[in-house]
Amino acid sequence: MTADTAYQALTVETLPERLKDVAALIQHVGQDAATWQVQEVGDGNLNLVFIVSGPNGKAIVKQALPYVRLVGDSWPLPLYRAFFEYHALRRQAARDPGAVPVIYHFDEVQAMIIMEFLAPHVILRRKLIAGEQVAGLAAFLGRYCARTAFRGSELSMQSPDKKADVALFAGNVEIPAITEALVFTDPYFDADMNSHTEGLAPVIAKLRNDIGLKVKVQQMLQQFVSNTQTMVHGDLHSGSIMSTDDDSRVIDPEFVQYGPMGFDIGMLCANFLMAYFSQPAHRGANLSAYQEWILEVIADISDHFEQEFRHLWATERTGILYPAALFEDQGHDSTAACDAVLAGIWRDAWAVCGIEMHRRCLSLAHNADFEEIDDVALRARLEARNLSMGAELIHTADTIADAQAVCALAREFNGKDVL
Amino acid sequence: MTADTAYQALTVETLPERLKDVAALIQHVGQDAATWQVQEVGDGNLNLVFIVSGPNGKAIVKQALPYVRLVGDSWPLPLYRAFFEYHALRRQAARDPGAVPVIYHFDEVQAMIIMEFLAPHVILRRKLIAGEQVAGLAAFLGRYCARTAFRGSELSMQSPDKKADVALFAGNVEIPAITEALVFTDPYFDADMNSHTEGLAPVIAKLRNDIGLKVKVQQMLQQFVSNTQTMVHGDLHSGSIMSTDDDSRVIDPEFVQYGPMGFDIGMLCANFLMAYFSQPAHRGANLSAYQEWILEVIADISDHFEQEFRHLWATERTGILYPAALFEDQGHDSTAACDAVLAGIWRDAWAVCGIEMHRRCLSLAHNADFEEIDDVALRARLEARNLSMGAELIHTADTIADAQAVCALAREFNGKDVL
Repeated sequence: MTADTAYQALTVETLPERLKDVAALIQHVGQDAATWQVQEVGDGNLNLVFIVSGPNGKAIVKQALPYVRLVGDSWPLPLYRAFFEYHALRRQAARDPGAVPVIYHFDEVQAMIIMEFLAPHVILRRKLIAGEQVAGLAAFLGRYCARTAFRGSELSMQSPDKKADVALFAGNVEIPAITEALVFTDPYFDADMNSHTEGLAPVIAKLRNDIGLKVKVQQMLQQFVSNTQTMVHGDLHSGSIMSTDDDSRVIDPEFVQYGPMGFDIGMLCANFLMAYFSQPAHRGANLSAYQEWILEVIADISDHFEQEFRHLWATERTGILYPAALFEDQGHDSTAACDAVLAGIWRDAWAVCGIEMHRRCLSLAHNADFEEIDDVALRARLEARNLSMGAELIHTADTIADAQAVCALAREFNGKDVL
Repeated sequence: MTADTAYQALTVETLPERLKDVAALIQHVGQDAATWQVQEVGDGNLNLVFIVSGPNGKAIVKQALPYVRLVGDSWPLPLYRAFFEYHALRRQAARDPGAVPVIYHFDEVQAMIIMEFLAPHVILRRKLIAGEQVAGLAAFLGRYCARTAFRGSELSMQSPDKKADVALFAGNVEIPAITEALVFTDPYFDADMNSHTEGLAPVIAKLRNDIGLKVKVQQMLQQFVSNTQTMVHGDLHSGSIMSTDDDSRVIDPEFVQYGPMGFDIGMLCANFLMAYFSQPAHRGANLSAYQEWILEVIADISDHFEQEFRHLWATERTGILYPAALFEDQGHDSTAACDAVLAGIWRDAWAVCGIEMHRRCLSLAHNADFEEIDDVALRARLEARNLSMGAELIHTADTIADAQAVCALAREFNGKDVL
């Protein structure tokens, strides 16, 4: 396959012949493409994902499709998102070494990334639904969020590099547009692609009639589209994390953009909270222990995030923001400045968290934590707790003390039925 | 002069020969370049500005120099700023028709814009120092700030157009870098290029020892570099406005970038406040009447800004933010949303206002309002009032009620000597 070949979607059948000369595959899978086994495993909403196996090992071939897989070719989506995913992966690898799969090969025309096959990693969301714990998860995620937030901002980057990167990623238009609509707007009115569990109508009506809530959510949208604090993953939920019992990686950054520092960690915490609220449908005897483990992960993510962020503040503050010239060099402690930055991050994060909790039950692209609950009445009851807590977070984001307070709120809503 | 001619700075002597075939000059000045009179009038810090006169009339030829004129060739500055100025002027003309000079010709290689000669306009700062009133000034400036803020944001623009524009203007690196350093950072420590009036040391020491103030200023810097709400002029002071007794235009947008909606109006108000505080050195009997006129301009700019912004909110809200689908279409009034957006703009504006009041007395590029006061003791006394009010604005920006409250504060500091 040469660089000027026109784009063509791969299939299980055509992949070996088409990629037989790609050195990265030969190296990681095996010399003779005739010996490769190919399996298509894409369970996401947007792309083809193949596992290619051979005598030397395995590799992942991920190829963008020119439309939203979840919806079909009625919703076209540009192939260039693979370009942004590739550039995001490179930056994430540099900013938090080891956090993302190793890239073996990138083909821009084919919108294809060949990368490390992670084993025995599975999608974290599956583990959360199955009630499995992952050692070191909070430390990994807290550090990942802190490192990518800090090192992708003018706290660390030189200003010309940051501006060039903002310009580059501003080209990723249609993918962030999905977030703009599906996350921030559609949940709050009767949008075409919305769906929700039967029985939720009264809770939804309350949200959609809450003008103050809608104002706050739209303020967060304004911030999402016009705040380039750092490079965000843009879709950091438990389906974008792969884990073993004690190792985790972040995948799928095609929603990358420069955005608010609190965005990723807010969305991430929302997905743990939804895992928490869905547990009564998935667990038996160990329900409360597993739910408490999830809350512990949230609190620990927050602790590790703060700890790492403060460490980077002290050791890597090489950008134009809050320069040592104004603080340390004057004998002035800059802790108050770091406190203020962190407070701003958390204000944004908790509002985004509440919004993500809403959109996953109200617009397109629900999550398996709730979707796999067959008992519709139970699902509605659990989603209602989740939706109500989401509203509370959006309304109170500015005054929430810390992640422990969020966990306390989760316990409260977990015992409070609004339906 | 052809497009591939290498850049060469124009001189009064070479201009006619070099530009004799430029149709725009022939049309507006006269057919025969030998009859043109050329005068160099650049009194700014960065560029060459020529008035070219002839039988048909006059035109302005503005050419960027490859260094900061104020400092010399030890501070190189890229010529591409003329490209951004040109694109800014085009957008400003579209967003507020008639507000900026008409462009006749642009030559990217020569970093040269040929444009309308404004007459009998003079730089507004000169009129403020001379004690002259300008009819319609506040209405013009309030509307200009509202229209460019609103129409350059996702309140109005389509998202792909906005992202493409953000990417384009992210290429303007070195010029905004001047603002990042000179406005937001240098005033607050003993930076190399700083200078200040003798006698201000105690006031300056107080500012530079105020850690909370520095934190707040750096938060505003973080916002300035990573908030792309709208296309800002970037240098909207009274030296970037030309007026007659009843007509005004905005010029010199080479500091253009996408930035916070409150930036331009904040900097603008600061320059009126500095004109206000400097008046005791420039006026005699009519001092208090003229000072009150300046405050009236500030209050009226604010009123016209709000009025125009609310008008555009009601009539031109065509972007993805605060969509009618969520508000009006649901029978929900969106006034609370507009209130929240405006409140955010003013919070930012008053903090920027205070910062601008500081930098004009403390870092490079002081303003004539104060600089032309020969009596050093008087200048220090007036600058001290200005510096102190600036600090108050930065500290209280979040809670200032409105522009009237700012005017009241100005009167208070005008009567309070801190030296």
